[in-house]
Amino acid sequence: MNKYQQIAYEIEQHIHEHNLAQGTKLDSLDTLTKRYNVSRSTISKALDTLEKRGAIFQQRGSGIFVRRQRREGYMSLLVTSGFSANFQDSNIRYDVLNVEKTVADEDVANNLHIEAGAPVYLVERLVYMDEEKLCKEVSYFPVQVVPYLNKEIAEQSIFHYLETAYKINISFADVYLVIDQLNEAEADMLDLPLLSPGLYMEQVVYLATGIPFDYSKVVYHYKHAKFFLQSVNN
Amino acid sequence: MNKYQQIAYEIEQHIHEHNLAQGTKLDSLDTLTKRYNVSRSTISKALDTLEKRGAIFQQRGSGIFVRRQRREGYMSLLVTSGFSANFQDSNIRYDVLNVEKTVADEDVANNLHIEAGAPVYLVERLVYMDEEKLCKEVSYFPVQVVPYLNKEIAEQSIFHYLETAYKINISFADVYLVIDQLNEAEADMLDLPLLSPGLYMEQVVYLATGIPFDYSKVVYHYKHAKFFLQSVNN
Repeated sequence: MNKYQQIAYEIEQHIHEHNLAQGTKLDSLDTLTKRYNVSRSTISKALDTLEKRGAIFQQRGSGIFVRRQRREGYMSLLVTSGFSANFQDSNIRYDVLNVEKTVADEDVANNLHIEAGAPVYLVERLVYMDEEKLCKEVSYFPVQVVPYLNKEIAEQSIFHYLETAYKINISFADVYLVIDQLNEAEADMLDLPLLSPGLYMEQVVYLATGIPFDYSKVVYHYKHAKFFLQSVNN
Repeated sequence: MNKYQQIAYEIEQHIHEHNLAQGTKLDSLDTLTKRYNVSRSTISKALDTLEKRGAIFQQRGSGIFVRRQRREGYMSLLVTSGFSANFQDSNIRYDVLNVEKTVADEDVANNLHIEAGAPVYLVERLVYMDEEKLCKEVSYFPVQVVPYLNKEIAEQSIFHYLETAYKINISFADVYLVIDQLNEAEADMLDLPLLSPGLYMEQVVYLATGIPFDYSKVVYHYKHAKFFLQSVNN
Protein backbone atom coordinates (compact mmCIF):
# COMPACT_ATOMS: atom_id res chain seq x y z
CA MET A 1 0.00 0.00 0.00
CA ASN A 2 1.34 3.42 -0.97
CA LYS A 3 1.43 6.25 1.53
CA TYR A 4 -1.56 8.03 -0.07
CA GLN A 5 -3.56 4.80 -0.03
CA GLN A 6 -2.76 4.32 3.65
CA ILE A 7 -3.94 7.87 4.40
CA ALA A 8 -7.09 7.38 2.32
CA TYR A 9 -7.77 4.19 4.28
CA GLU A 10 -7.32 5.97 7.62
CA ILE A 11 -9.63 8.84 6.66
CA GLU A 12 -12.25 6.34 5.51
CA GLN A 13 -11.91 4.40 8.76
CA HIS A 14 -12.36 7.65 10.68
CA ILE A 15 -15.63 8.38 8.80
CA HIS A 16 -16.80 4.83 9.40
CA GLU A 17 -15.89 4.60 13.09
CA HIS A 18 -17.49 7.91 13.97
CA ASN A 19 -20.45 7.17 11.71
CA LEU A 20 -20.18 10.68 10.23
CA ALA A 21 -23.27 11.89 8.38
CA GLN A 22 -23.44 13.00 4.74
CA GLY A 23 -22.23 16.60 4.56
CA THR A 24 -20.06 16.50 7.70
CA LYS A 25 -17.07 18.79 7.15
CA LEU A 26 -13.69 17.10 7.44
CA ASP A 27 -10.34 18.66 8.29
CA SER A 28 -8.82 20.92 5.65
CA LEU A 29 -6.04 19.96 3.25
CA ASP A 30 -3.59 22.05 5.30
CA THR A 31 -4.56 20.41 8.58
CA LEU A 32 -4.29 16.93 7.05
CA THR A 33 -0.91 17.79 5.51
CA LYS A 34 0.42 18.78 8.93
CA ARG A 35 -1.14 15.85 10.74
CA TYR A 36 0.26 13.20 8.41
CA ASN A 37 3.51 15.10 7.88
CA VAL A 38 3.51 14.48 4.13
CA SER A 39 3.39 16.70 1.04
CA ARG A 40 0.20 18.46 -0.03
CA SER A 41 0.23 16.40 -3.23
CA THR A 42 0.15 13.13 -1.23
CA ILE A 43 -2.88 14.38 0.70
CA SER A 44 -4.47 15.58 -2.56
CA LYS A 45 -3.98 12.14 -4.06
CA ALA A 46 -5.53 10.48 -0.99
CA LEU A 47 -8.52 12.84 -1.19
CA ASP A 48 -8.95 12.28 -4.93
CA THR A 49 -8.95 8.53 -4.27
CA LEU A 50 -11.67 8.96 -1.65
CA GLU A 51 -13.67 11.20 -3.98
CA LYS A 52 -13.52 8.65 -6.80
CA ARG A 53 -14.62 5.98 -4.35
CA GLY A 54 -17.62 8.12 -3.37
CA ALA A 55 -16.54 8.51 0.28
CA ILE A 56 -16.13 12.30 0.24
CA PHE A 57 -16.77 15.29 -1.93
CA GLN A 58 -14.50 18.29 -2.27
CA GLN A 59 -15.92 21.74 -2.73
CA ARG A 60 -13.41 24.25 -3.91
CA GLY A 61 -12.77 27.09 -1.45
CA SER A 62 -15.16 25.62 1.02
CA GLY A 63 -13.87 22.28 2.23
CA ILE A 64 -14.01 18.53 2.23
CA PHE A 65 -17.25 16.76 3.15
CA VAL A 66 -18.44 13.26 3.96
CA ARG A 67 -20.42 11.50 1.25
CA ARG A 68 -22.41 8.48 2.40
CA GLN A 69 -23.75 5.57 0.50
CA ARG A 70 -27.24 5.49 1.87
CA ARG A 71 -28.58 2.05 1.02
CA GLU A 72 -27.41 -1.32 2.24
CA GLY A 73 -27.01 -4.45 0.12
CA TYR A 74 -26.11 -2.77 -3.16
CA MET A 75 -22.97 -3.85 -5.02
CA SER A 76 -20.66 -1.07 -6.23
CA LEU A 77 -20.18 -0.99 -9.98
CA LEU A 78 -16.99 0.97 -9.45
CA VAL A 79 -15.17 -1.61 -7.35
CA THR A 80 -13.16 -3.65 -9.83
CA SER A 81 -11.61 -5.97 -7.30
CA GLY A 82 -14.21 -8.73 -7.54
CA PHE A 83 -17.16 -10.08 -5.57
CA SER A 84 -15.29 -10.79 -2.37
CA ALA A 85 -13.99 -7.23 -2.10
CA ASN A 86 -17.44 -5.87 -2.88
CA PHE A 87 -19.43 -7.86 -0.35
CA GLN A 88 -17.26 -7.68 2.73
CA ASP A 89 -20.29 -8.05 4.98
CA SER A 90 -21.62 -11.11 3.14
CA ASN A 91 -20.37 -14.62 2.71
CA ILE A 92 -19.28 -15.17 -0.90
CA ARG A 93 -18.77 -18.74 -2.06
CA TYR A 94 -17.63 -19.91 -5.49
CA ASP A 95 -18.87 -23.16 -6.94
CA VAL A 96 -16.28 -23.88 -9.63
CA LEU A 97 -17.91 -25.59 -12.61
CA ASN A 98 -14.92 -25.65 -14.92
CA VAL A 99 -11.30 -24.52 -15.20
CA GLU A 100 -9.50 -25.31 -18.42
CA LYS A 101 -6.78 -24.09 -20.69
CA THR A 102 -8.24 -23.42 -24.09
CA VAL A 103 -7.82 -20.98 -27.00
CA ALA A 104 -9.40 -17.57 -27.56
CA ASP A 105 -12.26 -17.36 -30.03
CA GLU A 106 -12.86 -14.15 -32.01
CA ASP A 107 -14.92 -12.47 -29.26
CA VAL A 108 -12.48 -13.34 -26.47
CA ALA A 109 -9.47 -12.34 -28.58
CA ASN A 110 -11.07 -9.03 -29.47
CA ASN A 111 -11.83 -8.16 -25.85
CA LEU A 112 -8.44 -9.26 -24.51
CA HIS A 113 -6.50 -7.61 -27.38
CA ILE A 114 -4.83 -10.91 -28.28
CA GLU A 115 -4.76 -13.09 -31.40
CA ALA A 116 -7.61 -15.53 -31.98
CA GLY A 117 -6.23 -18.96 -31.10
CA ALA A 118 -3.92 -17.64 -28.36
CA PRO A 119 -4.02 -19.71 -25.13
CA VAL A 120 -6.40 -18.57 -22.36
CA TYR A 121 -7.70 -19.95 -19.09
CA LEU A 122 -11.45 -20.40 -19.04
CA VAL A 123 -13.10 -20.35 -15.61
CA GLU A 124 -16.81 -20.99 -15.07
CA ARG A 125 -18.25 -20.36 -11.64
CA LEU A 126 -21.55 -20.10 -9.88
CA VAL A 127 -21.31 -17.38 -7.23
CA TYR A 128 -23.33 -17.63 -4.01
CA MET A 129 -23.92 -14.73 -1.65
CA ASP A 130 -25.00 -15.90 1.81
CA GLU A 131 -25.88 -19.24 0.15
CA GLU A 132 -28.20 -17.61 -2.41
CA LYS A 133 -27.34 -17.84 -6.09
CA LEU A 134 -26.00 -14.42 -7.09
CA CYS A 135 -24.69 -15.05 -10.63
CA LYS A 136 -23.09 -17.34 -13.15
CA GLU A 137 -19.70 -16.14 -14.34
CA VAL A 138 -17.54 -17.13 -17.32
CA SER A 139 -14.06 -15.58 -17.30
CA TYR A 140 -11.13 -15.68 -19.68
CA PHE A 141 -7.54 -14.94 -18.66
CA PRO A 142 -4.74 -14.76 -21.25
CA VAL A 143 -1.98 -17.24 -20.40
CA GLN A 144 0.50 -14.58 -21.46
CA VAL A 145 -0.45 -12.58 -18.33
CA VAL A 146 -1.85 -15.33 -16.08
CA PRO A 147 0.41 -18.35 -16.61
CA TYR A 148 -1.43 -20.72 -14.27
CA LEU A 149 -4.86 -21.23 -12.70
CA ASN A 150 -6.57 -24.24 -11.18
CA LYS A 151 -9.79 -25.22 -9.41
CA GLU A 152 -8.37 -24.54 -5.97
CA ILE A 153 -7.40 -20.99 -6.91
CA ALA A 154 -10.80 -20.40 -8.55
CA GLU A 155 -12.57 -21.39 -5.33
CA GLN A 156 -11.31 -18.15 -3.80
CA SER A 157 -11.07 -14.61 -5.16
CA ILE A 158 -9.03 -14.97 -8.37
CA PHE A 159 -8.21 -11.26 -8.33
CA HIS A 160 -6.84 -11.50 -4.82
CA TYR A 161 -4.75 -14.49 -5.88
CA LEU A 162 -3.37 -12.68 -8.93
CA GLU A 163 -2.51 -9.61 -6.91
CA THR A 164 -0.69 -11.72 -4.34
CA ALA A 165 0.95 -14.43 -6.45
CA TYR A 166 1.79 -12.49 -9.59
CA LYS A 167 1.91 -8.96 -8.12
CA ILE A 168 -0.62 -8.02 -10.77
CA ASN A 169 -1.74 -4.43 -10.42
CA ILE A 170 -5.46 -4.31 -11.21
CA SER A 171 -5.99 -0.85 -12.53
CA PHE A 172 -9.22 -0.18 -14.41
CA ALA A 173 -12.16 -1.85 -16.08
CA ASP A 174 -14.69 -1.39 -18.86
CA VAL A 175 -18.12 -2.59 -17.75
CA TYR A 176 -21.09 -3.16 -20.08
CA LEU A 177 -24.63 -3.91 -18.88
CA VAL A 178 -27.65 -5.13 -20.80
CA ILE A 179 -30.96 -6.65 -19.69
CA ASP A 180 -32.67 -9.57 -21.33
CA GLN A 181 -34.68 -12.72 -20.68
CA LEU A 182 -32.88 -15.83 -19.44
CA ASN A 183 -32.47 -18.73 -21.84
CA GLU A 184 -33.10 -22.28 -20.67
CA ALA A 185 -29.55 -23.07 -19.54
CA GLU A 186 -29.28 -19.81 -17.61
CA ALA A 187 -32.70 -20.20 -16.01
CA ASP A 188 -31.82 -23.77 -14.94
CA MET A 189 -28.53 -22.64 -13.51
CA LEU A 190 -30.11 -19.84 -11.46
CA ASP A 191 -33.23 -21.83 -10.43
CA LEU A 192 -35.53 -19.36 -12.17
CA PRO A 193 -38.37 -19.83 -14.66
CA LEU A 194 -37.50 -19.55 -18.36
CA LEU A 195 -37.68 -15.95 -19.63
CA SER A 196 -37.11 -14.44 -16.18
CA PRO A 197 -35.27 -11.10 -16.28
CA GLY A 198 -31.50 -11.33 -16.26
CA LEU A 199 -28.82 -8.71 -15.97
CA TYR A 200 -25.89 -9.43 -18.27
CA MET A 201 -22.59 -7.83 -17.42
CA GLU A 202 -19.44 -7.95 -19.50
CA GLN A 203 -16.26 -6.69 -17.97
CA VAL A 204 -12.75 -6.19 -19.30
CA VAL A 205 -10.21 -5.60 -16.53
CA TYR A 206 -6.84 -3.99 -17.24
CA LEU A 207 -3.41 -3.88 -15.66
CA ALA A 208 -1.87 -0.48 -14.93
CA THR A 209 0.01 -0.91 -18.22
CA GLY A 210 -3.27 -0.91 -20.16
CA ILE A 211 -3.06 -4.63 -20.93
CA PRO A 212 -6.36 -6.52 -20.44
CA PHE A 213 -5.99 -9.61 -18.22
CA ASP A 214 -9.61 -10.64 -17.61
CA TYR A 215 -12.70 -10.76 -19.80
CA SER A 216 -15.80 -11.90 -17.90
CA LYS A 217 -19.39 -12.50 -18.87
CA VAL A 218 -21.77 -12.63 -15.93
CA VAL A 219 -25.52 -13.29 -15.68
CA TYR A 220 -27.07 -12.05 -12.45
CA HIS A 221 -30.10 -13.48 -10.66
CA TYR A 222 -32.51 -10.55 -10.86
CA LYS A 223 -33.67 -10.82 -7.27
CA HIS A 224 -30.15 -10.50 -5.92
CA ALA A 225 -28.61 -8.09 -8.40
CA LYS A 226 -28.66 -4.64 -6.83
CA PHE A 227 -26.04 -2.16 -7.91
CA PHE A 228 -25.04 1.33 -7.01
CA LEU A 229 -22.49 3.79 -8.17
CA GLN A 230 -21.58 7.29 -7.18
CA SER A 231 -20.60 9.50 -10.05
CA VAL A 232 -18.79 12.81 -10.05
CA ASN A 233 -19.55 15.38 -12.69
CA ASN A 234 -16.64 17.05 -14.41
CA MET B 1 -15.89 26.63 -18.18
CA ASN B 2 -12.81 26.68 -15.97
CA LYS B 3 -9.33 26.68 -17.47
CA TYR B 4 -8.74 23.01 -16.56
CA GLN B 5 -12.08 22.03 -18.10
CA GLN B 6 -11.16 23.90 -21.29
CA ILE B 7 -7.82 22.05 -21.46
CA ALA B 8 -9.51 18.70 -20.76
CA TYR B 9 -11.95 19.46 -23.58
CA GLU B 10 -9.12 20.29 -26.00
CA ILE B 11 -7.19 17.11 -25.18
CA GLU B 12 -10.35 15.06 -25.65
CA GLN B 13 -11.00 16.76 -28.99
CA HIS B 14 -7.43 15.97 -30.04
CA ILE B 15 -7.96 12.26 -29.25
CA HIS B 16 -11.26 12.29 -31.10
CA GLU B 17 -10.09 14.19 -34.20
CA HIS B 18 -7.01 12.04 -34.65
CA ASN B 19 -8.97 8.90 -33.82
CA LEU B 20 -6.17 7.80 -31.48
CA ALA B 21 -6.20 4.11 -30.53
CA GLN B 22 -6.38 2.68 -26.99
CA GLY B 23 -2.88 2.79 -25.50
CA THR B 24 -1.56 5.66 -27.64
CA LYS B 25 0.89 7.67 -25.55
CA LEU B 26 0.01 11.33 -25.11
CA ASP B 27 2.33 14.25 -24.34
CA SER B 28 3.81 14.34 -20.86
CA LEU B 29 2.62 16.52 -17.99
CA ASP B 30 5.66 18.77 -18.47
CA THR B 31 5.07 19.19 -22.19
CA LEU B 32 1.40 19.97 -21.62
CA THR B 33 2.27 22.45 -18.86
CA LYS B 34 4.54 24.34 -21.25
CA ARG B 35 2.14 24.17 -24.19
CA TYR B 36 -0.83 25.55 -22.28
CA ASN B 37 1.32 27.91 -20.21
CA VAL B 38 -0.49 27.07 -16.98
CA SER B 39 0.53 25.53 -13.66
CA ARG B 40 1.25 21.82 -13.31
CA SER B 41 -1.70 21.55 -10.94
CA THR B 42 -4.09 22.90 -13.61
CA ILE B 43 -2.83 20.27 -16.07
CA SER B 44 -3.07 17.60 -13.34
CA LYS B 45 -6.67 18.59 -12.71
CA ALA B 46 -7.46 18.43 -16.44
CA LEU B 47 -5.87 14.96 -16.66
CA ASP B 48 -7.71 13.72 -13.56
CA THR B 49 -10.96 14.91 -15.12
CA LEU B 50 -10.18 12.98 -18.31
CA GLU B 51 -9.22 9.89 -16.29
CA LYS B 52 -12.48 9.99 -14.32
CA ARG B 53 -14.33 10.33 -17.61
CA GLY B 54 -12.54 7.24 -18.94
CA ALA B 55 -10.82 9.10 -21.79
CA ILE B 56 -7.24 8.45 -20.65
CA PHE B 57 -5.28 6.46 -18.12
CA GLN B 58 -2.22 7.67 -16.26
CA GLN B 59 0.57 5.31 -15.45
CA ARG B 60 2.96 6.65 -12.87
CA GLY B 61 6.51 7.14 -14.14
CA SER B 62 5.55 5.99 -17.58
CA GLY B 63 3.08 8.40 -19.11
CA ILE B 64 -0.42 9.27 -20.14
CA PHE B 65 -2.34 7.00 -22.52
CA VAL B 66 -5.54 7.04 -24.54
CA ARG B 67 -8.41 4.95 -23.21
CA ARG B 68 -11.20 4.21 -25.69
CA GLN B 69 -14.76 3.23 -25.15
CA ARG B 70 -15.00 0.33 -27.53
CA ARG B 71 -18.70 -0.29 -28.09
CA GLU B 72 -21.25 1.99 -29.69
CA GLY B 73 -24.77 2.62 -28.44
CA TYR B 74 -24.11 2.18 -24.73
CA MET B 75 -25.16 4.91 -22.30
CA SER B 76 -22.58 6.02 -19.74
CA LEU B 77 -23.62 5.50 -16.16
CA LEU B 78 -21.08 8.08 -15.10
CA VAL B 79 -22.47 10.99 -17.09
CA THR B 80 -24.82 12.76 -14.70
CA SER B 81 -25.89 15.48 -17.12
CA GLY B 82 -28.97 13.72 -18.46
CA PHE B 83 -30.13 11.82 -21.53
CA SER B 84 -29.42 14.57 -24.03
CA ALA B 85 -25.78 14.90 -22.95
CA ASN B 86 -25.37 11.13 -23.00
CA PHE B 87 -26.75 10.46 -26.46
CA GLN B 88 -25.24 13.22 -28.52
CA ASP B 89 -25.39 11.07 -31.65
CA SER B 90 -29.05 10.15 -31.17
CA ASN B 91 -32.25 12.11 -31.28
CA ILE B 92 -33.72 12.35 -27.78
CA ARG B 93 -37.34 13.46 -27.47
CA TYR B 94 -39.31 13.96 -24.27
CA ASP B 95 -43.04 13.29 -24.19
CA VAL B 96 -44.12 15.22 -21.09
CA LEU B 97 -46.95 13.40 -19.33
CA ASN B 98 -47.23 15.62 -16.29
CA VAL B 99 -45.64 18.62 -14.58
CA GLU B 100 -47.08 19.69 -11.28
CA LYS B 101 -46.23 21.34 -8.01
CA THR B 102 -46.95 18.93 -5.20
CA VAL B 103 -45.55 17.92 -1.81
CA ALA B 104 -42.84 15.42 -0.91
CA ASP B 105 -43.94 12.07 0.47
CA GLU B 106 -41.71 10.15 2.90
CA ASP B 107 -39.62 8.49 0.16
CA VAL B 108 -39.09 11.71 -1.81
CA ALA B 109 -38.32 13.70 1.33
CA ASN B 110 -35.82 11.12 2.48
CA ASN B 111 -33.96 11.10 -0.84
CA LEU B 112 -33.97 14.88 -1.26
CA HIS B 113 -33.02 15.51 2.41
CA ILE B 114 -36.08 17.72 2.90
CA GLU B 115 -39.10 17.58 5.21
CA ALA B 116 -42.05 15.41 4.19
CA GLY B 117 -44.72 17.82 2.97
CA ALA B 118 -42.21 20.32 1.55
CA PRO B 119 -43.08 21.61 -1.95
CA VAL B 120 -41.55 19.81 -4.94
CA TYR B 121 -42.00 19.79 -8.69
CA LEU B 122 -43.07 16.42 -10.07
CA VAL B 123 -42.19 15.74 -13.72
CA GLU B 124 -43.28 12.59 -15.55
CA ARG B 125 -41.84 11.97 -18.99
CA LEU B 126 -41.61 9.26 -21.58
CA VAL B 127 -38.18 9.43 -23.22
CA TYR B 128 -37.72 8.45 -26.86
CA MET B 129 -34.37 7.73 -28.46
CA ASP B 130 -34.53 7.92 -32.26
CA GLU B 131 -38.32 7.55 -31.90
CA GLU B 132 -38.06 4.30 -29.89
CA LYS B 133 -39.29 4.23 -26.30
CA LEU B 134 -36.21 4.32 -24.08
CA CYS B 135 -37.70 4.80 -20.60
CA LYS B 136 -40.35 6.27 -18.38
CA GLU B 137 -39.03 8.80 -15.90
CA VAL B 138 -40.54 10.32 -12.75
CA SER B 139 -38.48 13.15 -11.25
CA TYR B 140 -38.83 15.31 -8.17
CA PHE B 141 -37.17 18.70 -7.76
CA PRO B 142 -37.36 20.61 -4.45
CA VAL B 143 -38.91 24.07 -4.98
CA GLN B 144 -36.35 25.41 -2.53
CA VAL B 145 -33.64 24.78 -5.18
CA VAL B 146 -35.71 24.74 -8.39
CA PRO B 147 -38.29 27.53 -7.95
CA TYR B 148 -40.06 27.02 -11.27
CA LEU B 149 -40.63 24.37 -13.94
CA ASN B 150 -43.24 23.96 -16.65
CA LYS B 151 -44.15 21.67 -19.55
CA GLU B 152 -42.15 23.71 -22.06
CA ILE B 153 -38.98 23.42 -19.97
CA ALA B 154 -39.56 19.69 -19.43
CA GLU B 155 -39.76 19.11 -23.18
CA GLN B 156 -36.04 19.82 -23.33
CA SER B 157 -33.14 18.77 -21.10
CA ILE B 158 -34.15 19.95 -17.61
CA PHE B 159 -30.53 19.74 -16.44
CA HIS B 160 -29.38 21.98 -19.26
CA TYR B 161 -32.15 24.44 -18.39
CA LEU B 162 -31.22 24.47 -14.69
CA GLU B 163 -27.55 25.00 -15.47
CA THR B 164 -28.37 27.89 -17.77
CA ALA B 165 -31.29 29.58 -16.03
CA TYR B 166 -30.35 29.04 -12.39
CA LYS B 167 -26.58 28.62 -12.77
CA ILE B 168 -26.98 25.33 -10.94
CA ASN B 169 -23.71 23.44 -10.70
CA ILE B 170 -24.52 19.73 -11.14
CA SER B 171 -21.82 18.01 -9.20
CA PHE B 172 -22.37 14.35 -8.37
CA ALA B 173 -24.98 11.62 -8.24
CA ASP B 174 -25.90 8.44 -6.40
CA VAL B 175 -27.26 5.84 -8.81
CA TYR B 176 -29.07 2.63 -7.79
CA LEU B 177 -29.99 -0.16 -10.21
CA VAL B 178 -32.28 -3.14 -9.74
CA ILE B 179 -33.90 -5.53 -12.21
CA ASP B 180 -37.46 -6.78 -12.00
CA GLN B 181 -40.52 -7.65 -14.05
CA LEU B 182 -42.70 -4.83 -15.40
CA ASN B 183 -46.10 -4.30 -13.82
CA GLU B 184 -49.14 -3.65 -16.00
CA ALA B 185 -48.88 0.15 -16.10
CA GLU B 186 -45.17 0.03 -16.92
CA ALA B 187 -45.64 -2.65 -19.59
CA ASP B 188 -48.44 -0.61 -21.20
CA MET B 189 -46.37 2.52 -21.14
CA LEU B 190 -43.38 0.83 -22.81
CA ASP B 191 -45.44 -1.29 -25.26
CA LEU B 192 -44.12 -4.53 -23.76
CA PRO B 193 -45.85 -7.68 -22.51
CA LEU B 194 -46.64 -7.88 -18.80
CA LEU B 195 -43.70 -9.31 -16.78
CA SER B 196 -41.09 -8.30 -19.37
CA PRO B 197 -37.71 -7.51 -17.83
CA GLY B 198 -37.24 -3.94 -16.69
CA LEU B 199 -34.25 -2.05 -15.43
CA TYR B 200 -35.15 0.28 -12.58
CA MET B 201 -32.81 3.15 -11.89
CA GLU B 202 -33.04 5.57 -9.02
CA GLN B 203 -30.81 8.59 -9.06
CA VAL B 204 -30.18 11.41 -6.61
CA VAL B 205 -28.27 14.30 -8.16
CA TYR B 206 -26.43 16.84 -6.03
CA LEU B 207 -25.21 20.42 -6.32
CA ALA B 208 -21.55 21.13 -5.61
CA THR B 209 -22.68 22.15 -2.13
CA GLY B 210 -23.88 18.60 -1.43
CA ILE B 211 -27.57 19.59 -1.60
CA PRO B 212 -29.74 17.15 -3.61
CA PHE B 213 -31.81 18.86 -6.28
CA ASP B 214 -33.21 15.92 -8.27
CA TYR B 215 -34.57 12.51 -7.30
CA SER B 216 -35.55 10.42 -10.32
CA LYS B 217 -37.07 6.97 -10.74
CA VAL B 218 -36.64 5.56 -14.21
CA VAL B 219 -37.84 2.30 -15.81
CA TYR B 220 -35.91 1.35 -18.94
CA HIS B 221 -37.19 -0.65 -21.90
CA TYR B 222 -34.95 -3.71 -21.73
CA LYS B 223 -34.25 -3.80 -25.45
CA HIS B 224 -32.90 -0.26 -25.48
CA ALA B 225 -31.17 -0.10 -22.10
CA LYS B 226 -27.47 -0.64 -22.66
CA PHE B 227 -25.07 0.87 -20.22
CA PHE B 228 -21.35 1.13 -19.81
CA LEU B 229 -18.99 2.55 -17.32
CA GLN B 230 -15.26 2.74 -17.03
CA SER B 231 -13.96 2.33 -13.54
CA VAL B 232 -10.57 3.14 -12.10
CA ASN B 233 -9.17 1.07 -9.28
CA ASN B 234 -7.69 2.91 -6.32
